[in-house]
Amino acid sequence: MKTKKPLILVTNDDGVSAPGIRTLIEIMAEIGEVIVVAPDKPQSAMGHAITINNTLYLNKISKDSDAVTEYSCSGTPVDCVKIAVNEILKQKPDLCVSGINHGTNSSINVIYSGTMSAALEAGIEGIQGIGFSLLDFDWNADFTQIKSYVKNIALEVLKNNLPKGVVLNVNFPKLKEKEIKGIKICRQANAKYDQKFDKRQTPQGKDYYWLAGDFINEDKGEDTDEWALENGYISVVPVQFDLTAHHTMQQLNTWKWNEI
Amino acid sequence: MKTKKPLILVTNDDGVSAPGIRTLIEIMAEIGEVIVVAPDKPQSAMGHAITINNTLYLNKISKDSDAVTEYSCSGTPVDCVKIAVNEILKQKPDLCVSGINHGTNSSINVIYSGTMSAALEAGIEGIQGIGFSLLDFDWNADFTQIKSYVKNIALEVLKNNLPKGVVLNVNFPKLKEKEIKGIKICRQANAKYDQKFDKRQTPQGKDYYWLAGDFINEDKGEDTDEWALENGYISVVPVQFDLTAHHTMQQLNTWKWNEI
Repeated sequence: MKTKKPLILVTNDDGVSAPGIRTLIEIMAEIGEVIVVAPDKPQSAMGHAITINNTLYLNKISKDSDAVTEYSCSGTPVDCVKIAVNEILKQKPDLCVSGINHGTNSSINVIYSGTMSAALEAGIEGIQGIGFSLLDFDWNADFTQIKSYVKNIALEVLKNNLPKGVVLNVNFPKLKEKEIKGIKICRQANAKYDQKFDKRQTPQGKDYYWLAGDFINEDKGEDTDEWALENGYISVVPVQFDLTAHHTMQQLNTWKWNEI
Repeated sequence: MKTKKPLILVTNDDGVSAPGIRTLIEIMAEIGEVIVVAPDKPQSAMGHAITINNTLYLNKISKDSDAVTEYSCSGTPVDCVKIAVNEILKQKPDLCVSGINHGTNSSINVIYSGTMSAALEAGIEGIQGIGFSLLDFDWNADFTQIKSYVKNIALEVLKNNLPKGVVLNVNFPKLKEKEIKGIKICRQANAKYDQKFDKRQTPQGKDYYWLAGDFINEDKGEDTDEWALENGYISVVPVQFDLTAHHTMQQLNTWKWNEI
């Protein structure tokens, strides 16, 4: 008896033509039936932005004879997931994978990342979600080294099912396959950017700014994603979209909120 | 002996000219020294987007004789906080308030909200942050009813200091001041959108889409922000930017990650 192939939605934030998503499509086509809905242009650092004050365009970019159906969308990564699930697909996918991102989405980057926001949106819609990122910003980054790991992680998720309300943030060190030490379940490191702004002038003499700065990790824990990546491991952080700081509610209840 | 006034950064996502931020500036000017850095245009639903592939412009829009210094910025709400803290301000503000948003940011809206992302960014930068939202999308919404509550909440935060890594998501029901029952510390309701897409055609016959849909709250808990708001309370949710689902790590460690 033949088992029904899982339906897998693929998206990213670097745009549908990025080498990272092309590799991810290739890997997912070995596992299931794949549909691609990805931004028609780079949408890095778009966070969980959605398009509410503007129109969205959808273009089918695959030929009818192609094995994988692909759409490009004019919106953000989260728009792509929403329109895929609610407009294009006839049934809920078994898995949504986002990436493979060209560059890190570890620690605080999770919150700025379009790749991870797409995976989180899948989770919000009740679909298992995984964001994959490689610590190499180069357009020509070598994704072949991590293909077997990406495939195994997707298979593990399909086999075991993620806890409700949780998606995975998977980051790969820039190493050869043989040098990678394995996979570690981690917490998000408490790191941030020491932001700077590069002030310049237009040819007309008007000031403008570029966001710049350095990544600062002061979290010394050995259970963090940053530690894992620095030590040759693939980091897997379970990420949730209930942002409530439950542990602080008791303390906040002692404040004098209602004495106006 | 005169106590030094707190330095308060004010921003929003509806744009610097929105009545909601005008009210917030007025209230904060009663408490401290205020500086405004807010988007030069509406930036609703921008989530935690930042501008990394484009330039940023900053315009001082207040006169030198004005009591409050105001800048408009071409970027997202998160860009506004970053450029305020790292480029404009000489010292770290004591508080960053965002809003008052025209419309709800309760439950899952927290993740799409530019207002709340600005408050979260303040938290990431080690500054106390509060996002304020009124459940009235109208540009002419009546913010006078909630002024005393907004002021008291800001004063409580300045007096007690928020727990580290936590900002507040404050939503106000659309009620008269006398009808409001008080403030409740809540958790984020487990609610979402039943998203639909309204398909239309351009005058040239090309299909396009508008994001639409209904808000669905299936969370029956009486400790949620949705419950509080429906029952006449102001909801205050402590929100964190460590997205790790710590409670699932043990379970995920039992999976066969490293058997490739």
